[in-house]
Amino acid sequence: MTEPKRTVYFATENRNKYAEAARIAASFGLVMKHLKLRKEEIQSQNLSDIASFAARQAAESTGKSIVVEDAGFFVRGLGGFPGPYSSYVFDTLGWEGVLRLLHNVRNREALFEAVVAYCEPSHHPSCFTGRVKGTVTKRAKGSNGFGFDPIFVPRGNRRTFAEMTPEVKNLYSHRAKAFTKFCKWFASRQ
Amino acid sequence: MTEPKRTVYFATENRNKYAEAARIAASFGLVMKHLKLRKEEIQSQNLSDIASFAARQAAESTGKSIVVEDAGFFVRGLGGFPGPYSSYVFDTLGWEGVLRLLHNVRNREALFEAVVAYCEPSHHPSCFTGRVKGTVTKRAKGSNGFGFDPIFVPRGNRRTFAEMTPEVKNLYSHRAKAFTKFCKWFASRQ
Repeated sequence: MTEPKRTVYFATENRNKYAEAARIAASFGLVMKHLKLRKEEIQSQNLSDIASFAARQAAESTGKSIVVEDAGFFVRGLGGFPGPYSSYVFDTLGWEGVLRLLHNVRNREALFEAVVAYCEPSHHPSCFTGRVKGTVTKRAKGSNGFGFDPIFVPRGNRRTFAEMTPEVKNLYSHRAKAFTKFCKWFASRQ
Repeated sequence: MTEPKRTVYFATENRNKYAEAARIAASFGLVMKHLKLRKEEIQSQNLSDIASFAARQAAESTGKSIVVEDAGFFVRGLGGFPGPYSSYVFDTLGWEGVLRLLHNVRNREALFEAVVAYCEPSHHPSCFTGRVKGTVTKRAKGSNGFGFDPIFVPRGNRRTFAEMTPEVKNLYSHRAKAFTKFCKWFASRQ
């Protein structure tokens, strides 16, 4: 049985990320299936390089059309740290570490960035980027979300990501923006 | 012309690392050549995984017997941070960032670790690990060396790595230990 042309596989171990992306895909008439695969991540300061490498590896090893997603939290006053290593930094230092590093640092601007990379076997990957600009708070607020959400307030708002419901957060979400860009492009080229 | 069996290529962009390793190799009667190649680094908390992946990639792409080296600085009171991402963390936060994170942290134990991975084309890599235990100082001292050297005192010593001459530092060096292990093994199997 051949699959309909509008099917794509999202390689992720995170079921919540898959659910969020599949909802966006459905709104464009696309079918997104979950491929529970540990993506191979390279070290780079560029999320597009990381996502492209992972998408290409997964497409070659499975023979399927694949999307992967990679995200990072970039704090301007810390030279972009923790950037592409946000998960590792969160696991070792937590948001407490970022607040400690920002003690007496005047510039508290920050950026969440997500890159979605799409790759078909034997093809080059295409990347789609979503960003949310904002600032780092002086102390953590809220208990929703995960990672650095309790210390990040998106521009034009007074609440941290962790003080918002998932529905409201998704209006701003870097990840939702990147997946929406991808879905528009993917739907238009069929 | 076929190369003597005792030749191995060290894939690194760092000429100083190559020079140090070549000296150790020569003392075991081995010829180590410099292959100026950017190694492909994966994200992992395990230096052996990172070095193995890079050695295998380089061996497959060049058809040669390759060694690569990967190192990290692991601070116990920070959950092992910065670990495998030490270069990135040094470039963004410097040793100042590590001192700031350790403010009021009682446990200042730390560890430098180096892993040398050797791989022949179509073979599995072999890994050799060198470690130096010590403590993180309260302030930076000395101007030799690089990276986190000014804030690390190896066990049994009172001076930081940055206060030592390169010759003295190499008596303790994690990198020298890992290369010495590799060279012993490589010389014995010829």
